[in-house]
Amino acid sequence: MKIALAQLNYHVGNFESNTNKIIQHIREAKQNGADLVVFAELCVCGYPARDFLEFNEFITLCDEAAKTIATECHDIACIIGLPTPNNNPEGKDLNNSAYFIENGTVKAVVNKALLPNYDIFDEYRYFEPSTQFSCIDFKGKRIALTICEDLWNTIENPLYITRPMDTLIKQKPDVMINIAASPFAYNHDEERIEILKDNAIRYNLPLFYVNHVGAQTELIFDGGSLIFDNTGVLLDELPYFKEALTYYTLNDDASVSFEHASTIKAAHQSDIEQIHEGLILGIKDYFYKSGFKQAILGLSGGIDSAVVCALAAEALGPENVMAVLLPSRFSSDHSIKDAEDLVKNLGCKSETVAIAKITESFESALSPQFKNLPFNIAEENLQSRSRAVVLMAMCNKFGYILLNTSNKSEAAVGYGTLYGDMCGGISVIGDVFKTQVFELAREINKDREIIPENTIVKPPSAELRPDQKDTDSLPEYDILDAILYEYILNRRSSAEIIKLGFEEAVVRKVLRLVNISEHKRYQTPPILRVSPKAFGMGRRMPIVGKYLS
Amino acid sequence: MKIALAQLNYHVGNFESNTNKIIQHIREAKQNGADLVVFAELCVCGYPARDFLEFNEFITLCDEAAKTIATECHDIACIIGLPTPNNNPEGKDLNNSAYFIENGTVKAVVNKALLPNYDIFDEYRYFEPSTQFSCIDFKGKRIALTICEDLWNTIENPLYITRPMDTLIKQKPDVMINIAASPFAYNHDEERIEILKDNAIRYNLPLFYVNHVGAQTELIFDGGSLIFDNTGVLLDELPYFKEALTYYTLNDDASVSFEHASTIKAAHQSDIEQIHEGLILGIKDYFYKSGFKQAILGLSGGIDSAVVCALAAEALGPENVMAVLLPSRFSSDHSIKDAEDLVKNLGCKSETVAIAKITESFESALSPQFKNLPFNIAEENLQSRSRAVVLMAMCNKFGYILLNTSNKSEAAVGYGTLYGDMCGGISVIGDVFKTQVFELAREINKDREIIPENTIVKPPSAELRPDQKDTDSLPEYDILDAILYEYILNRRSSAEIIKLGFEEAVVRKVLRLVNISEHKRYQTPPILRVSPKAFGMGRRMPIVGKYLS
Repeated sequence: MKIALAQLNYHVGNFESNTNKIIQHIREAKQNGADLVVFAELCVCGYPARDFLEFNEFITLCDEAAKTIATECHDIACIIGLPTPNNNPEGKDLNNSAYFIENGTVKAVVNKALLPNYDIFDEYRYFEPSTQFSCIDFKGKRIALTICEDLWNTIENPLYITRPMDTLIKQKPDVMINIAASPFAYNHDEERIEILKDNAIRYNLPLFYVNHVGAQTELIFDGGSLIFDNTGVLLDELPYFKEALTYYTLNDDASVSFEHASTIKAAHQSDIEQIHEGLILGIKDYFYKSGFKQAILGLSGGIDSAVVCALAAEALGPENVMAVLLPSRFSSDHSIKDAEDLVKNLGCKSETVAIAKITESFESALSPQFKNLPFNIAEENLQSRSRAVVLMAMCNKFGYILLNTSNKSEAAVGYGTLYGDMCGGISVIGDVFKTQVFELAREINKDREIIPENTIVKPPSAELRPDQKDTDSLPEYDILDAILYEYILNRRSSAEIIKLGFEEAVVRKVLRLVNISEHKRYQTPPILRVSPKAFGMGRRMPIVGKYLS
Repeated sequence: MKIALAQLNYHVGNFESNTNKIIQHIREAKQNGADLVVFAELCVCGYPARDFLEFNEFITLCDEAAKTIATECHDIACIIGLPTPNNNPEGKDLNNSAYFIENGTVKAVVNKALLPNYDIFDEYRYFEPSTQFSCIDFKGKRIALTICEDLWNTIENPLYITRPMDTLIKQKPDVMINIAASPFAYNHDEERIEILKDNAIRYNLPLFYVNHVGAQTELIFDGGSLIFDNTGVLLDELPYFKEALTYYTLNDDASVSFEHASTIKAAHQSDIEQIHEGLILGIKDYFYKSGFKQAILGLSGGIDSAVVCALAAEALGPENVMAVLLPSRFSSDHSIKDAEDLVKNLGCKSETVAIAKITESFESALSPQFKNLPFNIAEENLQSRSRAVVLMAMCNKFGYILLNTSNKSEAAVGYGTLYGDMCGGISVIGDVFKTQVFELAREINKDREIIPENTIVKPPSAELRPDQKDTDSLPEYDILDAILYEYILNRRSSAEIIKLGFEEAVVRKVLRLVNISEHKRYQTPPILRVSPKAFGMGRRMPIVGKYLS
């Protein structure tokens, strides 16, 4: 049996483009002699569809798309994913389903049993878990078809009380197929390989796994679909961050063969290489899928905006990136020069709008209220907010989308101005710690100097008052990021973090800063997610709560 | 058996204050001869604790608080709610539990079975549902203790496939007790009474129901705890939006008697009266629980900011409200006068900061870029954003929290400026449609004219260009709100809404405006929730998705 795996970039709610893409790949697979072509979980509507799923019209359109797709399935079978109404009057309205379509009709329906509802996942919000499991017979082979999380209930750390394959294996299947929507995080590819390999070994079956690729607002899907033999050997791996259609033959002895050269990488990409590729895809799809072309950002001469500018130029083309220098009276000469050098290196567009007179107009308008009170955070924020207003005015006038340039360390400790540098349509590096931003700059400069060396080596500064340095108010970034990692990703208490060897006063200060910044993060743009715990939908903290640390 | 019901205002994560409050009420109930005092669901940690629940330290602190509370339970028993570790190694880490504490020790643990995971609820994110149900014997009575949603699985529309009381009833209980965390919406009190009454009738048992009161950021809990006899007659109702401790005797013939006058209202409050009280509590608790006292807002002379200002003055005291007039060249004389009249009527503080020179400084700084392009939304937004920067500067200088004054109709169609009038720490009327804002103004003026009549009767205008009226770009508010209601609350498609009799072009325009504003709403402050479907956590729409309507 010849099986085609289609790893594609869908668009949530775009039935026309998703359906066309699926049909086009069915046709191509048929031309290439495939018996079966496998698409990803919920491919018909895109993932995550969120509360679109609560609209009856949306479910009807999924059904209609499936019917259109079914008419293409002659002399080839296909597996697609879509939400379907739950036939049981008890329980939630929907199932997360896979259709096995053959001879123009739906031959079998498989419903997902294990519904992830942690981190960014909300599947139990919409779907009723399945409790019945049947294999599908096709061309003399018996297929155990499951959906994503259904294979993820590990023996060591079982998140659910059932395991669908434990039922399916009793029906003596010949092969496992798993369709997935497994979002990217820099550590996720290895975890995915490990867990799927365990399944192949445990059930002694070859395994075909098909994932999404492409970004849906903040969620990036990295592809990397996988093929294992029945001993758990990884036979092939589809490309990361790219669409692909590949073919495999499932032989009668349960072995899997294929004609193309296996694309398994000898060494996996480093975290930073993955983050780099992921962010490029994230920017590209955010603009493409929202119908915009042109990005704008404020360029300070610092490393964060430099990295975002370089990523945007790579993703959208330098001709579609407008970098705006917004010097104030505190901007240093080297900052302006560094920013100009970057613009030159990238070949992107640039403008300069000085903000000194703007902040003066605010200070003058507010002088009856502020009287002779000393310069403080109010005046610092005036600069940051004046810049944001300039950038947003340019967005409104010319149709740009503003890129947010805050990094994860800043976002964590609230080292940023709400309605100032925290503005933007999408946050590009809001899930990248400052120490990783430096690595990313080096990665971007791998082949030639794009980001000026001075931008990378100078001490970070917000330049909102004379001679300000980030380290005036924050610990060194390697210490800060290590503490943040323990608190945010590992959810350790202050006592536990102190026990790891960090200075008590520093730990308490950092955790306090994180806690009192929840209200700021609530109002920030969506953040491209590259880590297992990003700010946004995946981390839901109270705002008006009493924090412990 | 004498039962005390404690309907209290907790604070998420504030173990010290929650524990003290619980202990103080145990003591008071004991002094008044109660055998048992019942507190609300998850009262120990507050509700909703969100991802606090993912911190081990948080769960440990819950356990320690319960131990402290237990030491008070001699000669009186109590029921408290808290998260506890799931003893089963399979499934999620926690249970949503109720402790029955007697003689200083936990005599019984009940775990919640039906975990709401719709709208604002995320309980399946944290908790494993219970599948085992046992009654609790106490002083010759058998108690069927359940937690909130456990009684909410209706016969007509069953959201879950089990019903805990169907198991518990077989053990022949004498009484039902349900502890809850059931947030306010203007239609929710009637629904609650109906569903609980059905339970009393179906199981032929008296029912004691204890709810939270108080607000946790955007969620308001209205109290209104309930007592039914075994025929479903509502015997008593605790006050709405207030703390209370009341006593009942469960007699041997299963009847319930009590000494105080029943506080059931002859007629329930109107929606607007409830919204009014709910918003007052929401503002109060937002400030009190976050440790702030002083609110600031921009006063335009229009009805939205007038209503918010009046509510804030009522909630915080007029001396804690700073109203700032921010006239531009497009502000009409009557607007300034209306704003001044309101300030006078309320007795709140006020300042005037003219923004004309500020917007001119932006226009001048941007003139090399904008050249002679015509005045458009860029310049309109400059005004709104300049006002926000002034207000935020005053927040930074003086420690105010900015109140957002957008209404739900505006928020829905994106008739507001991101980083402009959409700023604020909390949105007061973001869940109140414009037509309801008018009703709210009348309600506020019930006893005397607080909001100037002219503010209520003049045609709404954003005053961002000469002679602008809201109806220049939007349909009349009664039409707009009716369409929004069908789309947002009833999730109807454009075709369905048109079929209800609305003009096709208008429906398409409104729905399109809602859809293209998702990115704006993503970055708005938390919105005090008063309806069954508010923007925020309860409505999770894709941003970069293709919308249907």
